[in-house]
Amino acid sequence: MNKQIILAQRPEGFPKESDFKLVESPIPVPAAGEIIVQTLYLSVDPYMRGRMNDVKSYAPPVKLGEVMVGGVVGQVMQSKLAEFKKGDIVEGFFGWQEYAVSDGKGVRKIDPQLAPISTALSVLGMPGLTAYFGLLDIGKPQAGETVVVSGAAGAVGSMVGQIAKITGCRVVGVAGSDVKVDYLMRELGFDAAFNYKTTDDYFKKLKELCPGGIDVYFDNVGGPVMDAVFKLINVKARVCVCGQISQYNLAKPEMGPRFLWKLIEKRARVEGFLVFQFADRYAEGLRQMAEWYKAGKMKIREEITEGIKNAPRAFIGMLQGQNTGKQLVKIAEAS
Amino acid sequence: MNKQIILAQRPEGFPKESDFKLVESPIPVPAAGEIIVQTLYLSVDPYMRGRMNDVKSYAPPVKLGEVMVGGVVGQVMQSKLAEFKKGDIVEGFFGWQEYAVSDGKGVRKIDPQLAPISTALSVLGMPGLTAYFGLLDIGKPQAGETVVVSGAAGAVGSMVGQIAKITGCRVVGVAGSDVKVDYLMRELGFDAAFNYKTTDDYFKKLKELCPGGIDVYFDNVGGPVMDAVFKLINVKARVCVCGQISQYNLAKPEMGPRFLWKLIEKRARVEGFLVFQFADRYAEGLRQMAEWYKAGKMKIREEITEGIKNAPRAFIGMLQGQNTGKQLVKIAEAS
Repeated sequence: MNKQIILAQRPEGFPKESDFKLVESPIPVPAAGEIIVQTLYLSVDPYMRGRMNDVKSYAPPVKLGEVMVGGVVGQVMQSKLAEFKKGDIVEGFFGWQEYAVSDGKGVRKIDPQLAPISTALSVLGMPGLTAYFGLLDIGKPQAGETVVVSGAAGAVGSMVGQIAKITGCRVVGVAGSDVKVDYLMRELGFDAAFNYKTTDDYFKKLKELCPGGIDVYFDNVGGPVMDAVFKLINVKARVCVCGQISQYNLAKPEMGPRFLWKLIEKRARVEGFLVFQFADRYAEGLRQMAEWYKAGKMKIREEITEGIKNAPRAFIGMLQGQNTGKQLVKIAEAS
Repeated sequence: MNKQIILAQRPEGFPKESDFKLVESPIPVPAAGEIIVQTLYLSVDPYMRGRMNDVKSYAPPVKLGEVMVGGVVGQVMQSKLAEFKKGDIVEGFFGWQEYAVSDGKGVRKIDPQLAPISTALSVLGMPGLTAYFGLLDIGKPQAGETVVVSGAAGAVGSMVGQIAKITGCRVVGVAGSDVKVDYLMRELGFDAAFNYKTTDDYFKKLKELCPGGIDVYFDNVGGPVMDAVFKLINVKARVCVCGQISQYNLAKPEMGPRFLWKLIEKRARVEGFLVFQFADRYAEGLRQMAEWYKAGKMKIREEITEGIKNAPRAFIGMLQGQNTGKQLVKIAEAS
């Protein structure tokens, strides 16, 4: 049988495991032009929280009773498509289930010789591309500038910091535990980092860690960290708005201090982006990220939870910031 | 004697006339390399409110007891500089006084044959350049797009709307009286406009007036109008932050709903600017604005208050939105 996690009810505020439900259905059979993929690794990502709400955004919400959306690395079990053969490792948007049927659209073949296949969900996948295009195209960091990144120990944040270091920037990370801060400093070579959960005054701390002000802020988090950053931006600063994880689980929208006057004073820019807008340049991004990865300049730590039934717990833990690096759910071994 | 308006005390919240003081000093005498300019027209502008606070921003504050800053069109009375001769009409940052001494730096000669000399403080001056570069370079409007402008009947806003019309956009104005709305619709050719002071639900009104959403918002005002605009922005929308007049007179910073998540969804950009950042392209801007002005495509209404002693009242009235078009203070006739 095909174990699947469906959306059982829409969360109010922070999601609970009971918002999800494990169901079973027959393993699908391919029609002409289709493949069947067995899930090996499932990615859990912050954007999924948005899809659980009954609100039209850039993508439609998951319907009640529908399999949760998500990126997967899997293996082709059966193929009725010329481009894929049994045994191929592929990456695609197959959802929270053990087996998926696909017409091959948007499915990418993965070379297992290049890197561990799970990296197709981190460095060599969507989070890597998000970091690459978001920082370089929206943030446009220059050597010698100061880059601050929030959610710095997460999948995207940890790569943003490393790309900024490669670019020659001073990099300051904001993360949610001392272990994460230690990881950023010792393993990823950040210039400074702090644990926002044990810091009272973000402004004071950021001022201390960014004596020359902030030129680029890569925001995965929003909320009070961002409020503090805005007080420290330099002339012509750029704020890349990638995520707002501090806001996703609020039952009602939060208020914050208005800051647009600061943008005038500093001639600064705040810009939101979605990785999809760079779709025609994914090959460029993957090539560069692979090069850095192979050269040892782009490290990624993976946190692996085992078993599809534990996917909701892994997802909720990720929203709570329990993971350092990329949170994955391992479903099966490649054959 | 030289009548001058000095900053007598720093305002708490909305400025009062008693924050200013009229003083007299001897008419200055030029040293070698200096000119003496008699003020003909004095400009009062929103940015001056910021200079009254003891806060370092992009420019230093006016000190207590110092003459208030401001742009002036005046006439050279005496010259010990080769570039200027007695009788020349000039524009410069001479402040709220009847006579000023200057070393000629940043002083621009005005051709009285080209247009009424007061336009050097509106269409053919700083407000015109602000509208030109702010809308075209920051907003980048495209024909067929919807442009919303707040403070639409003010000096900058009224020109922004006209430039957007020239560009082929649908233009919607937000203004503070029915007279202003009428002016925008009948005289300036806006496609729609509303009086925010008699409108309860800005979102509903903007939705009605912008059925295709909002592509460019030129913000002179900030606050609740901006909150409503953010709910209606289109994919790749651009918000040009020129002014935040609703916020300048608050005793303490206002809170507002957080909106950065919306920038992600819409891949939208919010950018602050100061006209000074385009200083190396002023000639281009003035040439184009003069061409549109002469062709009758760039109208400006002037509100004239007479006498230096009434400058504080004119300034306060402008902050309250009493003027339609450009608020000036007339000090003397050209000889």
